[in-house]
Amino acid sequence: MHSETSPVFSACAAALAGPRQPRVWSVIITIFGDLAQAPGDTISGAVLSRITELAGIKPEAQRVALHRLRKDGWIESARVGRLSHHRLTAFGRALSAEATPRIYAERIDPPARWHVLIAGGEEAAREALDAVLLTGDYISVSPQAALGPGPVPEGCADLLSFDTARFGVPDWARERVFPADLRAAYDRLHDALREVAESLGPAPVLAPLEAATLRMLVVHNWRRLVLKHPEVPREFYPEGWSGEACRAEVARILSRVPRPGLEQLDGTDSAA
Amino acid sequence: MHSETSPVFSACAAALAGPRQPRVWSVIITIFGDLAQAPGDTISGAVLSRITELAGIKPEAQRVALHRLRKDGWIESARVGRLSHHRLTAFGRALSAEATPRIYAERIDPPARWHVLIAGGEEAAREALDAVLLTGDYISVSPQAALGPGPVPEGCADLLSFDTARFGVPDWARERVFPADLRAAYDRLHDALREVAESLGPAPVLAPLEAATLRMLVVHNWRRLVLKHPEVPREFYPEGWSGEACRAEVARILSRVPRPGLEQLDGTDSAA
Repeated sequence: MHSETSPVFSACAAALAGPRQPRVWSVIITIFGDLAQAPGDTISGAVLSRITELAGIKPEAQRVALHRLRKDGWIESARVGRLSHHRLTAFGRALSAEATPRIYAERIDPPARWHVLIAGGEEAAREALDAVLLTGDYISVSPQAALGPGPVPEGCADLLSFDTARFGVPDWARERVFPADLRAAYDRLHDALREVAESLGPAPVLAPLEAATLRMLVVHNWRRLVLKHPEVPREFYPEGWSGEACRAEVARILSRVPRPGLEQLDGTDSAA
Repeated sequence: MHSETSPVFSACAAALAGPRQPRVWSVIITIFGDLAQAPGDTISGAVLSRITELAGIKPEAQRVALHRLRKDGWIESARVGRLSHHRLTAFGRALSAEATPRIYAERIDPPARWHVLIAGGEEAAREALDAVLLTGDYISVSPQAALGPGPVPEGCADLLSFDTARFGVPDWARERVFPADLRAAYDRLHDALREVAESLGPAPVLAPLEAATLRMLVVHNWRRLVLKHPEVPREFYPEGWSGEACRAEVARILSRVPRPGLEQLDGTDSAA
């Protein structure tokens, strides 16, 4: 089906290929987040197919994923004759926009102020703490305590709360946020990103569809890790943690492989 | 053995009599803390016996308690002919001096800055937290978290620590520090202290031994409650808690029943 890819693209894609097939619905969210996050932005079915095809995803898997994303309210699709067009819904755009800064920022400066929430043995307090942890913004620092950014929010009356700006963090607390397998995954990504950077060379020439696919592969691999844990105070970064180096490398690669315009993608082929 | 007591003293002593006999070794510590805390201060066996006798304590119980206090290193005794003299050891004076501000201060201003220590599941961290709670300066706010005054001290590297100065305290956390029976005990003491204040009238006339004994009864009842829990931020005071009112009443009564000099006590009798 698809034309030959450039050696540069092939090398980069090989460096970023993980042991497991990526989850396709998540890949599609990454594509929309990277290329078509603005209201009104649409991606044609043909372009979407070319990108996922370049990433080694089967057409059937894309169909299933799009169906699921429509059902979950992320994506809406329209058909004009034989051509289909897809776009993020308002809900999809909002969730995408929420994650964008943590994924794309070249550098993260964690907030200076944080708060600790503690549940005692009381049922209501433990339920309140569980609800807080579900937001994804909190670090579970012990079975009955959570740390979150900024001042204590409204609605925490059942919890004991403390505002804080100074921390002492022992190794076990770092391990709790960054267990060995997560640290190893960051290390592997860092190696892969350096390989990509090397393969790209100083002035990479990629076709628009290759550029879009490579950006997706970089962002998807990074996003998968960075969204696995909440933002944490620097004091929680493990020694030798490669997370910050990954972030810098992601930003450098994305700046060398600029986002192609949606109009460039339509009607082009994958090869340069 | 002892002469008749004044009606004022009898009324006050009756108001302060609890359902249980006070622990005699603790009573003796209260007496030394109130009358003879300075280095070199001694109390004669005769005076000590008169005071405990006025408080309804049997001579045998005093002998046993003094024996225990000597064994534990609080008190040292000397005998000159048929007369014995007792005084606090350096160790006893140090412990006494440590408790004095919390007992005698007319008003407590809790520190503005506090710190929270959290133990995770790690054995070493839980042991560190247990050790910290044993100092008596910490509030156990949950099974794995403690709140202490001032900045994080040295030697807490195994614990997750946060400096804080702002609290949100739910009812369960107040209950944890001031359970219902402790709040009720404060309420009963408050009633008793008001009865004492009423019985004393505007210009009480008490013999030196009566004054010493009444002071002991007031301080002992108060000390028993106030040293049962650490100092806490105001946010932890339960609604309607009578602890602060008790403190003010204790200070007022003690100022109306001044501490008799040790030389006044020797060779006087209990009646005015």
